[in-house]
Amino acid sequence: MSVLRNYVSGQWQEPAEDGTPLHDAVTGEEIARISSAGVDMAAALDYGRRIGGPALRELTFHQRAALLKSLASHLREYRGELYALSARAGATKGDAKFDVDGGIGVLFSYSSKGRRELPNDTVHVDGDPEQLGKGGTFLAQHIATPLHGVAVQINAFNFPVWGPLEKLAPAFLAGVPSLIKPAEQTAYLTHRLVELIVESGILPEGSVQLVCGSAGDLLDHLTDQDQLSFTGSASTAQRLRTHPNVVAQAVRFNAEADSLNCSILGPDATPGTEEFDLFVGQLVTEMTVKAGQKCTAIRRAFVPASLVDDVIDAATERLSAIKVGNPANSDVGMGALASLEQREEVRRSLKALLEAGRLVYGDTRERLSVVDADAINGAFVPPFLLRCDDPQQAQPHEVEAFGPVSTVMPYEGAEQAVELAQRGKGSLVGSVVTADADFAREVVTGSASRHGRMLVLNRHNAGESTGHGSPLPQLVHGGPGRAGGGEEMGGVRGVLQHMQRTAVQGDPDTLSAITGQWMPGSKRTTTEVHPFRKHLEQLRVGDTVVAGPRTVTLDDVEHFAEFTGDTFYAHTDEQAAAANPFFEGRVAHGYLVVSLAAGLFVSPEPGPVLANYGLENLRFVTPTYPGDEITVTLTAKRITPRQGGDYGEVRWDADVTNQNGESVAKYDVLTLVQKESNS
Amino acid sequence: MSVLRNYVSGQWQEPAEDGTPLHDAVTGEEIARISSAGVDMAAALDYGRRIGGPALRELTFHQRAALLKSLASHLREYRGELYALSARAGATKGDAKFDVDGGIGVLFSYSSKGRRELPNDTVHVDGDPEQLGKGGTFLAQHIATPLHGVAVQINAFNFPVWGPLEKLAPAFLAGVPSLIKPAEQTAYLTHRLVELIVESGILPEGSVQLVCGSAGDLLDHLTDQDQLSFTGSASTAQRLRTHPNVVAQAVRFNAEADSLNCSILGPDATPGTEEFDLFVGQLVTEMTVKAGQKCTAIRRAFVPASLVDDVIDAATERLSAIKVGNPANSDVGMGALASLEQREEVRRSLKALLEAGRLVYGDTRERLSVVDADAINGAFVPPFLLRCDDPQQAQPHEVEAFGPVSTVMPYEGAEQAVELAQRGKGSLVGSVVTADADFAREVVTGSASRHGRMLVLNRHNAGESTGHGSPLPQLVHGGPGRAGGGEEMGGVRGVLQHMQRTAVQGDPDTLSAITGQWMPGSKRTTTEVHPFRKHLEQLRVGDTVVAGPRTVTLDDVEHFAEFTGDTFYAHTDEQAAAANPFFEGRVAHGYLVVSLAAGLFVSPEPGPVLANYGLENLRFVTPTYPGDEITVTLTAKRITPRQGGDYGEVRWDADVTNQNGESVAKYDVLTLVQKESNS
Repeated sequence: MSVLRNYVSGQWQEPAEDGTPLHDAVTGEEIARISSAGVDMAAALDYGRRIGGPALRELTFHQRAALLKSLASHLREYRGELYALSARAGATKGDAKFDVDGGIGVLFSYSSKGRRELPNDTVHVDGDPEQLGKGGTFLAQHIATPLHGVAVQINAFNFPVWGPLEKLAPAFLAGVPSLIKPAEQTAYLTHRLVELIVESGILPEGSVQLVCGSAGDLLDHLTDQDQLSFTGSASTAQRLRTHPNVVAQAVRFNAEADSLNCSILGPDATPGTEEFDLFVGQLVTEMTVKAGQKCTAIRRAFVPASLVDDVIDAATERLSAIKVGNPANSDVGMGALASLEQREEVRRSLKALLEAGRLVYGDTRERLSVVDADAINGAFVPPFLLRCDDPQQAQPHEVEAFGPVSTVMPYEGAEQAVELAQRGKGSLVGSVVTADADFAREVVTGSASRHGRMLVLNRHNAGESTGHGSPLPQLVHGGPGRAGGGEEMGGVRGVLQHMQRTAVQGDPDTLSAITGQWMPGSKRTTTEVHPFRKHLEQLRVGDTVVAGPRTVTLDDVEHFAEFTGDTFYAHTDEQAAAANPFFEGRVAHGYLVVSLAAGLFVSPEPGPVLANYGLENLRFVTPTYPGDEITVTLTAKRITPRQGGDYGEVRWDADVTNQNGESVAKYDVLTLVQKESNS
Repeated sequence: MSVLRNYVSGQWQEPAEDGTPLHDAVTGEEIARISSAGVDMAAALDYGRRIGGPALRELTFHQRAALLKSLASHLREYRGELYALSARAGATKGDAKFDVDGGIGVLFSYSSKGRRELPNDTVHVDGDPEQLGKGGTFLAQHIATPLHGVAVQINAFNFPVWGPLEKLAPAFLAGVPSLIKPAEQTAYLTHRLVELIVESGILPEGSVQLVCGSAGDLLDHLTDQDQLSFTGSASTAQRLRTHPNVVAQAVRFNAEADSLNCSILGPDATPGTEEFDLFVGQLVTEMTVKAGQKCTAIRRAFVPASLVDDVIDAATERLSAIKVGNPANSDVGMGALASLEQREEVRRSLKALLEAGRLVYGDTRERLSVVDADAINGAFVPPFLLRCDDPQQAQPHEVEAFGPVSTVMPYEGAEQAVELAQRGKGSLVGSVVTADADFAREVVTGSASRHGRMLVLNRHNAGESTGHGSPLPQLVHGGPGRAGGGEEMGGVRGVLQHMQRTAVQGDPDTLSAITGQWMPGSKRTTTEVHPFRKHLEQLRVGDTVVAGPRTVTLDDVEHFAEFTGDTFYAHTDEQAAAANPFFEGRVAHGYLVVSLAAGLFVSPEPGPVLANYGLENLRFVTPTYPGDEITVTLTAKRITPRQGGDYGEVRWDADVTNQNGESVAKYDVLTLVQKESNS
């Protein structure tokens, strides 16, 4: 049987020993063997730091985003192969899509977020500049720069494709190379994924490495510049968190552990309502998708006491329609657990849960009938639904059976629902199924501090809802306490977790040089050529046009009021305007001021500036009174070429001042500016 | 001698034993005794959670901000008393101001940030809504809610006033009560501070508790809802981080540890330049302020090899002018270390540093002459400046003498400067003294990943610079690796560290109910009364006015072009406009569209709406062509009453659509709206 090779230090390496066998979850056949024997972990980390890191840091966020998109498109071509391999891990086609398509979706999402929300540059500007002195010579700007280390992933067996990709995408976009260590049981899937990535040649060398089998002394070689991310059991998370070198170096550690997630049925959702059916349907889905081997699955179902019987009846009816068996057979609704060890683990946990509750679906003694497979060698269990009438019992809130197992418990009133939700002591996700917004608000705000994600499901969003169990790349994934205390994804938030935030203090020009962005008080360069006549490549941060003055007359104000219909009294009635606490008399419309400013700074003939597509952060700082003379100073603030496009975005700082030099309006003007050549 | 009482569970409690004596740093006299014997730590935490937390969570961010301001004003009245007490810890008047005024400044800063950057509400809306379905029925919004626990502070001895306040302010603003455990040596100062806070009665009961002396079994009772923040040595940080209960509960832990911060002199900064003098002056300041007992002090000074002699000459000249002695004496430039134990510690570390370098200022054998004090009983040392000509030696990058001790080392070129800066393996702060922006960019971007803060100091900002050693509440404080891997303050960032971020998914109306903010797709309420005629108290999120349609004619466009001067070709030249990739022909000015929209939604007569003070996030989504009919829908999105003011801010969602129902412009309109009554 073949031993899977590891990909480290730029090479596929044969392990130095025969390795541990991995078995087909359905047939028990050996699929492959894995081992990390012979891998020089220190050298692998060093390779990532020396080769992968610098290569990634040379690319801008947009360039990295483009590579993620190419990779996603490439992997999409191999979905069929990955689905087929997933069946050997017990996954139905639906389960496999959840994992494979989900993972590819994360790459696409990060590619898109990177292009839309990060600069086409290597430094991320975090928040607004902080003025630290009255004279404006001393500012601070927070920036984020990539860690100069390796993002080490220690993954769980249940998502062998999504798991590595949801960690790779934000790390890669941040400019940090990854080293992937899959969980043993399904390592053959991750191995194939990394083969596809490496063979594609899309990502720079050194940006991905793979070690199957034991982590060996990997953790001994981490530094403060590395990031260690773990998904799996709470006990392993604790072991990693307290590893002496991880502690000594204050290595960044992010854990995402299984949690006792709950779903709460609202009191409004009585039988016959859509919400009742949604609740029951979702409960059954979460029990059976991936055979319940999802860290986001519903383990605790809280139901108004009077509805417990109804929920159990409806759920058992649905459960009994689900066939367990060979996931490759399309009749099968629930496949196998990932391994026989997992089956043992589920049986053990179930036993503990049965101390507090009783089974209302699923039988532990009866021989399971499975479709198209062998119930002895395959890691099959039926769905197990428990009922526990005393929600104060400890076990349902503390014991997780990582399989198709949930417990239904009664509650009385929103306050108790909150208390019970919180008894999970930290969850990845909780859901509330209700059409009552007040109930939703009370439960969500009351228990949010113990949840990384909360879903309110009802008839209004069911058609589009992605469901309780689906982490999304746009949203944070992780939770406090039992859920590991970590946070992943969440769009750009996940990128920043692989970067160091630094508050940089200095004079405006130096900060501008460091951030690539014009800072308030930085040098403005006025040249003979109007900056609107420059193509993107010629334009420089700081290029400025000063235009005006133009007197804003009372006629202008009256005319503008009449023309636009904006006859607000502050523009039209001297006495009433003077009574307004902010004005001394009639004032010009803010819209008039910015319109006249545009008339001053515009360069009318066709040229590189294609369009003004928006404004940001407009503030009317000082009123403009009839007779005031306004001047506008427009300065190129940030230049963002579009990767592979024939134009880019230019953000301009606009400052409209009056004859006393006071700012009357400040804002950013957003324009599209053509490139001279497509690059 | 008096034993300091602890303030727990709403009472000042006498310790159950005599306690540990604390000594005057200058005279050696006993000042007080401290002990936590008899304190029921579990009960104290429980009290904070049961009494302090709920009381704080009932307040909005603005109400909490107002209390912080009151507290700051109150403490300011007692500065003199705190300065006097600080002298007993060895602090000069300047040192005491750094601590006391610095701490009060943090309260003011957080008060101001809270009012300006957080809502007058209990839920923080984090980032923009994420649309999760094409139909708009399913969205997500990240929110942050306060942890339902206690912010436990374990503080360092060197900032007994600033330390507790810089941790209290963001926790309080977040809605989380604090339990303060000061370091032993200067606990009498923190004790007096907490007495002043408690006596003032300004903060809700339960929001501050104080335990002097040992932490006892405090950590055994923490949960995932508590936050543990530590400032001090790396070894204690490691001990706390690996405490079994802290690990088991995944308690949020933030450490800020002493680090080997560096300052780099730019190659441009030769003798005779202002930067040379700034570098030397700052080095000496950082060595002597608080007798070098600052975790941000400069321990490593990197100087171009050719300038080492000059720097050392200039520094020793300045150092020799500084008198060491009784800090209460105004001639004294540097006071005592905080205790005799600290003196021992500094001497020990100095010995290790001398293995790699040699002293160029300060003598270890000579009897120190001190002003107005006794050199034996007082914890005095002179400033010690070392020279180490081989910067590859380990000690200067690894051994921290927590006192007036720095080492000057040579470097060659920016690349080596970066490499040496990084050898600190994680610093709170680094500074670069240069007027060369390229050098600054190379060093800052190259070493930022190992720094929480970096200062570029030069002639342009020296007059306003707050200096290398000053953490500021607006900026993050903390650093990776050796510096503890934590992050504090940084304005609102520090508040969010005491809150849980939760991604909430649901339909727009439910999300609106949960966040207190109108969400895209939420219900709009049109009433007979124009919403501009409603006072702040009557206005509801979702109140809407729909106005229009108005046809935008070619005359309008031509007239607007002529009137404003904005004769950009896309508005004036049909053929040229059609050649633009985004337009089919002449288009209306974006400014015209928003001006006409204002004319449609305005309510002209005097009323509660006082002013439009700005616009946000304006995007021109679809071109408006002559002949198009525009309609504007304006919806109250967020209502922010000003605490104690007679008006508030109302943010409106504006959506301008054309005759096909397409959005042409989307933006937020910011207005000031009067209250009916001042509350």
